[in-house]
Amino acid sequence: MALAGQNKAVNLQVQLAPKTNFDRVRSSALDPVLKLQLIAGLCRLNTLAAVKRAGSGHLGSSFSAMDLVVWLYERELNLSGGADRDVYFSSKGHDVPGLYAMLHSLGSIPESRLLKLRRLGGLDGHPNMGVPGIEANTGSLGMGISKGRGMARAQAMLGRAARTFVLTGDGELQEGQIYEALQTTAHQRVSNLHVIVDHNKLQTDKPVDEITALGSLEEKFRSFGWHVARCDGHDFVAIEQVFQRFREVSDRPKILIADTVKGKGVSFMEPGEGLYRWHSGAPDDESFMAAAKELLDSVREQFSRSGLRDLELIDVTPENKPSAKALQEFVAEAYGNELVVLGHERSDLIVLDGDLSADCRVRKFEHEFPERFVENGIAEQDMVSMAGGLALQGMLPVVNSFVSFLSSRANEQIYTNAGEGTKIIYACHFAGLIPAGPGKSHQSIRDISLFGALPNMTILQPCNGEETRQILRYCVNESSESCAIRLAIGPSPRRIELPSAYRFRLGEGAVLREGKDAVLFGYGPVMLHEALVASELLAERGFGLSVINMSSLNRFDIDWLAAAVRPFERIFVLEDHSPVGGLGDRLLATLVEHDLLGMKQFVKFAVEGYPACGTPAEVLRYHRLDGESLAERVGGRAEISQERERKLAAVYTTDAPQ
Amino acid sequence: MALAGQNKAVNLQVQLAPKTNFDRVRSSALDPVLKLQLIAGLCRLNTLAAVKRAGSGHLGSSFSAMDLVVWLYERELNLSGGADRDVYFSSKGHDVPGLYAMLHSLGSIPESRLLKLRRLGGLDGHPNMGVPGIEANTGSLGMGISKGRGMARAQAMLGRAARTFVLTGDGELQEGQIYEALQTTAHQRVSNLHVIVDHNKLQTDKPVDEITALGSLEEKFRSFGWHVARCDGHDFVAIEQVFQRFREVSDRPKILIADTVKGKGVSFMEPGEGLYRWHSGAPDDESFMAAAKELLDSVREQFSRSGLRDLELIDVTPENKPSAKALQEFVAEAYGNELVVLGHERSDLIVLDGDLSADCRVRKFEHEFPERFVENGIAEQDMVSMAGGLALQGMLPVVNSFVSFLSSRANEQIYTNAGEGTKIIYACHFAGLIPAGPGKSHQSIRDISLFGALPNMTILQPCNGEETRQILRYCVNESSESCAIRLAIGPSPRRIELPSAYRFRLGEGAVLREGKDAVLFGYGPVMLHEALVASELLAERGFGLSVINMSSLNRFDIDWLAAAVRPFERIFVLEDHSPVGGLGDRLLATLVEHDLLGMKQFVKFAVEGYPACGTPAEVLRYHRLDGESLAERVGGRAEISQERERKLAAVYTTDAPQ
Repeated sequence: MALAGQNKAVNLQVQLAPKTNFDRVRSSALDPVLKLQLIAGLCRLNTLAAVKRAGSGHLGSSFSAMDLVVWLYERELNLSGGADRDVYFSSKGHDVPGLYAMLHSLGSIPESRLLKLRRLGGLDGHPNMGVPGIEANTGSLGMGISKGRGMARAQAMLGRAARTFVLTGDGELQEGQIYEALQTTAHQRVSNLHVIVDHNKLQTDKPVDEITALGSLEEKFRSFGWHVARCDGHDFVAIEQVFQRFREVSDRPKILIADTVKGKGVSFMEPGEGLYRWHSGAPDDESFMAAAKELLDSVREQFSRSGLRDLELIDVTPENKPSAKALQEFVAEAYGNELVVLGHERSDLIVLDGDLSADCRVRKFEHEFPERFVENGIAEQDMVSMAGGLALQGMLPVVNSFVSFLSSRANEQIYTNAGEGTKIIYACHFAGLIPAGPGKSHQSIRDISLFGALPNMTILQPCNGEETRQILRYCVNESSESCAIRLAIGPSPRRIELPSAYRFRLGEGAVLREGKDAVLFGYGPVMLHEALVASELLAERGFGLSVINMSSLNRFDIDWLAAAVRPFERIFVLEDHSPVGGLGDRLLATLVEHDLLGMKQFVKFAVEGYPACGTPAEVLRYHRLDGESLAERVGGRAEISQERERKLAAVYTTDAPQ
Repeated sequence: MALAGQNKAVNLQVQLAPKTNFDRVRSSALDPVLKLQLIAGLCRLNTLAAVKRAGSGHLGSSFSAMDLVVWLYERELNLSGGADRDVYFSSKGHDVPGLYAMLHSLGSIPESRLLKLRRLGGLDGHPNMGVPGIEANTGSLGMGISKGRGMARAQAMLGRAARTFVLTGDGELQEGQIYEALQTTAHQRVSNLHVIVDHNKLQTDKPVDEITALGSLEEKFRSFGWHVARCDGHDFVAIEQVFQRFREVSDRPKILIADTVKGKGVSFMEPGEGLYRWHSGAPDDESFMAAAKELLDSVREQFSRSGLRDLELIDVTPENKPSAKALQEFVAEAYGNELVVLGHERSDLIVLDGDLSADCRVRKFEHEFPERFVENGIAEQDMVSMAGGLALQGMLPVVNSFVSFLSSRANEQIYTNAGEGTKIIYACHFAGLIPAGPGKSHQSIRDISLFGALPNMTILQPCNGEETRQILRYCVNESSESCAIRLAIGPSPRRIELPSAYRFRLGEGAVLREGKDAVLFGYGPVMLHEALVASELLAERGFGLSVINMSSLNRFDIDWLAAAVRPFERIFVLEDHSPVGGLGDRLLATLVEHDLLGMKQFVKFAVEGYPACGTPAEVLRYHRLDGESLAERVGGRAEISQERERKLAAVYTTDAPQ
């Protein structure tokens, strides 16, 4: 999620090593270890190129796991394609750029697709089954050993000689599901499951030992009944020896703690002083060129020393370098700043974080009030229940995470807290479809529905920094019930301008743009921008679309609502959410309950199916939620009728076709 | 959830030891240990009486934890009521009848309320904050250490000398959140948190070691950085010694593994051969009388030996013994039977269970196909992800648990599986409001909303055994997407009669009773029974209410739906769910989308607020969802208007007032 650094004046040249290089290395008579080193070096180079072109992606973890991945695919896995085919996948998933490079080297992923990392129809930001060679959807942490056990048991049950290999992170070991899986896998004696811990000792930007120390991993895993080995995860000989010994163990599952170095292979991407910089995000041009040079020099030197022909490289420098669009506004930034202000005003305010301090903009609070900041690591359930305990003793907890994780992983804990009648604020970062690069493990389009049936939960989403400030203050100082505040994590496409002297009032929306022909309710900076674009386009065609910022997503002032819809025969709701369970469902139920709908037309635009991965523009267009598509969809009655016919054609499908 | 055994011909006499007995023991000059034993004996007696009167409740666990609870309240906790007040709660929660007895002995809970276990306005089946002395809502497992840490940290932060004590089960140690909490609590060095494991070695009806063995608990807890002690959990002297030593440990959290005996205190309730019988459910009259005699004899003997005046007992035998109502039908039973039939037909069918094999009626399958049955213990997330792995390798998993846990605890895992496009069947037991005795941790009124925004999940609820059979077959053999099958867990109040030659078709409902004035859509045996009662009552008043069994909860055949609503100007939906995100929302959205609503009236009856605890009749009436209330609410336009006015009065509230 981090942004690229500042670009300095360097000539960017992005180069990719095509598959032919790998073929030459593989068919050479080189020493096996040297071969692996060359393949890993080339894969790192291609990973770097793909991430640079994508503009985001996880280099640190791709590089720490790279040698393990290369070793597995080159030396261990049965890749025959038959029934006995072994399965490998990464549970942490954000190291997938490295895996893509490996799969490219084997011919599973063509060059053209490798260059489409985080692009529509390309390669998802986290593993997704649609991509050749990807065996499981991951990206939300902690599920891999469980899923791997399912695969391994099925392999055994079906009489196959196949085995399953799962890579986990070490920060990932903070997730409780890991320990469920360690227990059940040992108890069920699933011995064809192999787990490798990519133990690079860093999670996002801080050491695991600082966030939540894991203690002695060997001792821990042994106490859970596993056969445990440990080695240098960059030493191919050592890795091979471990797996040779693993073959002799048939009465229990096996786990390798592989000591690795985050960013391995590029000197300045390996850990140094202070916060680690290369967990996620593409390097700026200068850093990219320096890293590429380092990797290339090393590979070239080995190539020439080994008597291989010159390295073949193709230039894949993006023709149109994405313009460094001026950042309009970050609502998350406003959130982080106001949280500090409130921290000074209220001594009962306590902030909890699940290893996303920088992304969730709570680092300022952390520095200002270290005694009222809890860094809880990657353990969302534990964090939420802890907040419940803090609230029961009179504190006001503000819980932070990406809402895709928070609202689903910790859903039952949130329910239990809410049932206790205490007040807790859930800061729901990365709400909605955009950014769409990380893929569907991170995009959150179900959270309103997941919070919706809690009887005492107010759900809100501010549209700009000022409203974020006001809404946070409302939740802290005024709300009598718990609140979920959805926050866009990226820069706002434009600063949404609220009426002057705007004051947030629960249940009331604000008109952003007047129009006489129809009204559209939207929320959040991303979708409101698209709605305004649509309205602007429609205005050119003589159609007046009124746009309302409806930041209250499940609480409505009936009088206000009645007045807001009265002038219109056509009501649209633009969701940054699934069509099921979002603002639209709540508004419709309320309109009908209060006899406000009458014969008015009511149409939702929402994220149908699973959210696509790609750039914001690609994905908004794909889901027909960009301003232009919206203008067409609002268009006129003729257009609407077509839309209806399309939907009517899908028998058995209400509003969630795939 | 288990049922009482068969009643034999004995004269039932239920006796309660009032608080005066405890006062006399406490103020006596008896040896401290003897005092504790007497108090524990009397508490067991009162626990037994309360559970017998309730007709359900957990004796085994109440008795295994009883001595620990008595010791804490009598010897360890600061119960002053001031800021330094210590906090105790049970994370597993189902031992709460024992805790209620203890709280009664201290005067926190009056006699009259102790006798209202699992009754409306009485004592919830699992801990709930409304009850004096209850410090946290629990009942869904694994959250307690996390919540306790929050309390303990708040206590420390607020400068209080207070401490927090949390009891967990041992089966509960299969939940992953436990290990998240062990890690973070040690890392955060929360030394005023004390955890006691009620290590009775049995979970529901089988040994923990058989379900998912825990290995060496001492080793495990130490590897997580805790100070660990172990002792006999029925030996007051040993317990006291442990806690004395705990006072000297100030750099880390402390955990006591207390070896206990499930059912302790009543010889035949302690573990013997075969399945354990006393995990939950009230004893039949004969067993009750035998248990009461054993407890009474022991206490009386100690009383007389100690020179205390005679034990005072009051007779609390229920005047109107609840009649053993003939069981109409169990849809869950039909599910379990059909699963076995399907198991014979399809070798890819594999059944997963989360330690609820008997309640979920999968024991027959377990016995018939042991190689295709996975007992996964209390680890829902792990179970669901494992199912995902099995499905990826070509199996068809059927995942079983109570849906309150399954749909929320494992929500993100279900999303991840669904995104992989495999087919998995989630058997959602204990769906809806009834039975209402276990309380809101178990009653599931949010699950439709929690599954609803998954693009490729069919949600269904059968109304009777035959439809259960058909729906299960549909899900296994026909559905192209994953399915969530909601199942009532209790006996059906009546057998819902479907039209002859009924054949389940996705998206179509079935008319159960014709009427010309309005139509009501309902689902599941409980609510359809109430709907039919309402229709019968209304018919007497000349009002025709058509009742439709709408077993497809989120997929509708538009032609069928259009025909079904065409004759009516008034449409009602009866939810066994929250008003938010259930069938009503989906139907309304579909009707509006397809221009089928027009000026028709559309009204939902649903479980508003949190589900109440009590008998089915009490709770249905409380929520105004019993047949009589429904008849009144459907009644006529005047009634409807009143209803509307009531709702309009609640400003800011759409449809979920508390």
